[in-house]
Amino acid sequence: MDIVVALRSALDDPDGVVVRTDVPVLDAARTDQSGWVADGAPAAVVDARTVAHVQATLRTCSALGVPVVPRGAGTGLAGGANGTDGSVVLSVARMDRILEVSVADELAVVEPGVLNAKLNETVARHGLRFAPDPASAAISSIGGNIATNAGGLRCVKYGVTREAVLGLDVVLADGRLVSTGHRTVKGVTGLDLTALMVGSEGTLGVIVGATVRLVPVPPGEPATLGAVFRTVYHAAAAAAAVVTAATEGAPRPSTVELLDEAALAGIADHLGPAVMAETVGSGQEGGVFLLVEYDGPGATEAALGAAPRLQAEGGTVRLAGSAAERDRLLTIRRSFHAAMTARGRVLIEDVAVPRSRLAEMFDRVAAISRDHGVAIPTVAHAGDGNLHPNFVFDGDVVPQRVRDAADALFRAAIELGGTLTGEHGVGVLKRHHLGDELGDDVLGLQRGIRRVFDPQGILNPGKVD
Amino acid sequence: MDIVVALRSALDDPDGVVVRTDVPVLDAARTDQSGWVADGAPAAVVDARTVAHVQATLRTCSALGVPVVPRGAGTGLAGGANGTDGSVVLSVARMDRILEVSVADELAVVEPGVLNAKLNETVARHGLRFAPDPASAAISSIGGNIATNAGGLRCVKYGVTREAVLGLDVVLADGRLVSTGHRTVKGVTGLDLTALMVGSEGTLGVIVGATVRLVPVPPGEPATLGAVFRTVYHAAAAAAAVVTAATEGAPRPSTVELLDEAALAGIADHLGPAVMAETVGSGQEGGVFLLVEYDGPGATEAALGAAPRLQAEGGTVRLAGSAAERDRLLTIRRSFHAAMTARGRVLIEDVAVPRSRLAEMFDRVAAISRDHGVAIPTVAHAGDGNLHPNFVFDGDVVPQRVRDAADALFRAAIELGGTLTGEHGVGVLKRHHLGDELGDDVLGLQRGIRRVFDPQGILNPGKVD
Repeated sequence: MDIVVALRSALDDPDGVVVRTDVPVLDAARTDQSGWVADGAPAAVVDARTVAHVQATLRTCSALGVPVVPRGAGTGLAGGANGTDGSVVLSVARMDRILEVSVADELAVVEPGVLNAKLNETVARHGLRFAPDPASAAISSIGGNIATNAGGLRCVKYGVTREAVLGLDVVLADGRLVSTGHRTVKGVTGLDLTALMVGSEGTLGVIVGATVRLVPVPPGEPATLGAVFRTVYHAAAAAAAVVTAATEGAPRPSTVELLDEAALAGIADHLGPAVMAETVGSGQEGGVFLLVEYDGPGATEAALGAAPRLQAEGGTVRLAGSAAERDRLLTIRRSFHAAMTARGRVLIEDVAVPRSRLAEMFDRVAAISRDHGVAIPTVAHAGDGNLHPNFVFDGDVVPQRVRDAADALFRAAIELGGTLTGEHGVGVLKRHHLGDELGDDVLGLQRGIRRVFDPQGILNPGKVD
Repeated sequence: MDIVVALRSALDDPDGVVVRTDVPVLDAARTDQSGWVADGAPAAVVDARTVAHVQATLRTCSALGVPVVPRGAGTGLAGGANGTDGSVVLSVARMDRILEVSVADELAVVEPGVLNAKLNETVARHGLRFAPDPASAAISSIGGNIATNAGGLRCVKYGVTREAVLGLDVVLADGRLVSTGHRTVKGVTGLDLTALMVGSEGTLGVIVGATVRLVPVPPGEPATLGAVFRTVYHAAAAAAAVVTAATEGAPRPSTVELLDEAALAGIADHLGPAVMAETVGSGQEGGVFLLVEYDGPGATEAALGAAPRLQAEGGTVRLAGSAAERDRLLTIRRSFHAAMTARGRVLIEDVAVPRSRLAEMFDRVAAISRDHGVAIPTVAHAGDGNLHPNFVFDGDVVPQRVRDAADALFRAAIELGGTLTGEHGVGVLKRHHLGDELGDDVLGLQRGIRRVFDPQGILNPGKVD
């Protein structure tokens, strides 16, 4: 039986309002923010409005053995939710209600399609927030944040998405609806299937509901420092110094972002000399930029305490004296992606290394750049050792020398005790390197777990494997 | 082949130094701090010194189909590590080296037998600590803390063990050694097997090494409040008030402990009227006690800010003005367990409910106490909604009316959206209620995952299932 006919019958959708087959819709589902476009086209995009739609879709696809690609806002950076040829893309983007906010229990119950920023806007009036803050917060959904265990700028102080998820409602490959976890912060009844689902990239089930932890918004205004260093080593050492100063009683910074020389040069081209002069100071060509922010009580004192630590590494330091000045410092960091995309197609990588190996990893990036003859402007969540080396190129196809350089990056990160993806996920783009990091035994366990949840292998086949 | 002979041969231990069969050793391995004693006796206790010992033991037991009970310090409260009849108890208590402490990366690499307190003593000199602080910290091991996802008093501010584990070395049932996770705080390569191992109670593998996250010790002295309330409702409301005050900009308390009327009465009997008078004040018979502590910068201001919130619920509040006074307040809480065991055998339960349902849960405890004619003195990690109702009885066998009351407790916690174990684990004692909380579908997934890791079912059979 034709899958589209079967789905329309199962979802009681004779007119194709939910089960879409229009070419622009199918085409849009083939790609994400990574720019990677799947070969061929999906058979249909199911624009689910209800849990029942999700269940019926999975039951039908199970019966017919058709692959299902779960998808949220489509803002992924690894191709994990891209609709492959002949698959059914199961979108939960329209399941976007906030069902409950409990101030007493500091949690929210949401549908998966709720945007991160929308949830934060809603709970802010209660003095609460959902801590994970991927750069995509304005456009990415909570379900996708959970499916990829999204990180962000605040992780250095507030942790990753896994720590913000209490419980999940999940539809399994055969259409059964199960609930994992609790409304409590503690709970150890059986294996932690909630944590297992976080970061599983649509391979174990489709998240249709989430009970997420909210945390109090820190009071007061943040205090923000910008510092320019001569080399990336000095900047990395300064980043380490302000983070580990917490062991001497200093507060933990809430953000520590490093822009290397190539990244800062690209931003300078993009923003122009006037903006740069009033932000990072004039005569700073060739510099490396570090953005450090503190929040909560005592933020300003903390920033004042951090300044000498940055200066000790040779940093020219500026403490934002006003909201406008803070905004200018943040704009430097925020302009990175726009500065890159203004130059051409961008491939964003996402390796992470132990914080103590950050300078070494920058060395490797420099060597790989030289060896392969490609520029690799890099921004790092320096407090977490998480680097985003960027490749810019012309045309739709990633050039071979860029692929080779990316492969070398992954190998270097793993050699330094790190990982090939800190927060973006494996998806399609990094699947060939999975075994290098995990080894055959762990890969075998992962495949076994996938088979437990999805014996037929219909959930996101060919991804994360 | 006899399992003892096989093990001694495989471990090259002809004299039985590692593979123990002496009756006192076997007997000691049949029980834990719950007091539950396994029927029959294990065939042997392997006192592993090395990863190779653990691998050889598991290979041998796999070959002969003999059940293996992984065990650490033996301080569990659910019978999860108790050696069952004919099993091999695989103890890692002697694998107790701290292999590395990295201040730069804020982590430690440890063997599983390292005691929680020992690790904390070692890393304190670097201004760091391992955040999980189960009441058993002085005697429980990191491996056991991880295997049960241990909680503690500080969880309300610092989280549970899962959030403190970065990576694990695990020996699988067939003797293969695998590594999960990273030395980085971020990392999303594949399924989160590290989180899956945390709280798995020895059913998926034997933890032989752990890379744990360390956090800075908050500077300065903590500020501690004791408050006495007329009823448990007032105390629960006050606990909620000081925790959720964080949404209005107040700091988060690091400890919020509630002792109900029966618990405080028991402690008063144990410590005597003089101690009670100088600590909780005289004329406080029939009261409910709340201990609230703040740490880090501004702790005293935070405590002063909390006092009116406690008073608003009718609390008679005392702020510790000296280290000695603080110690007296903490002694009230610390004396709870001793006060109970002075009266007889104790069964400690461990339910958790959403914080907003805490007062309701105390209502249920009171009703269950009346219905079954048993006293149920209760202490709660009130900030987490985690209650430890205690049953005290004479003799070695848990009386039927206590069992019935405990069953009623589990049902009540689940009804209120909670869980039957907040931090102690399921082990043997709660396995019959697992399905009530998880449902058949989730239980089926858990069993499937166990089979992936341990196809023969030799790891801790009959536990957590």
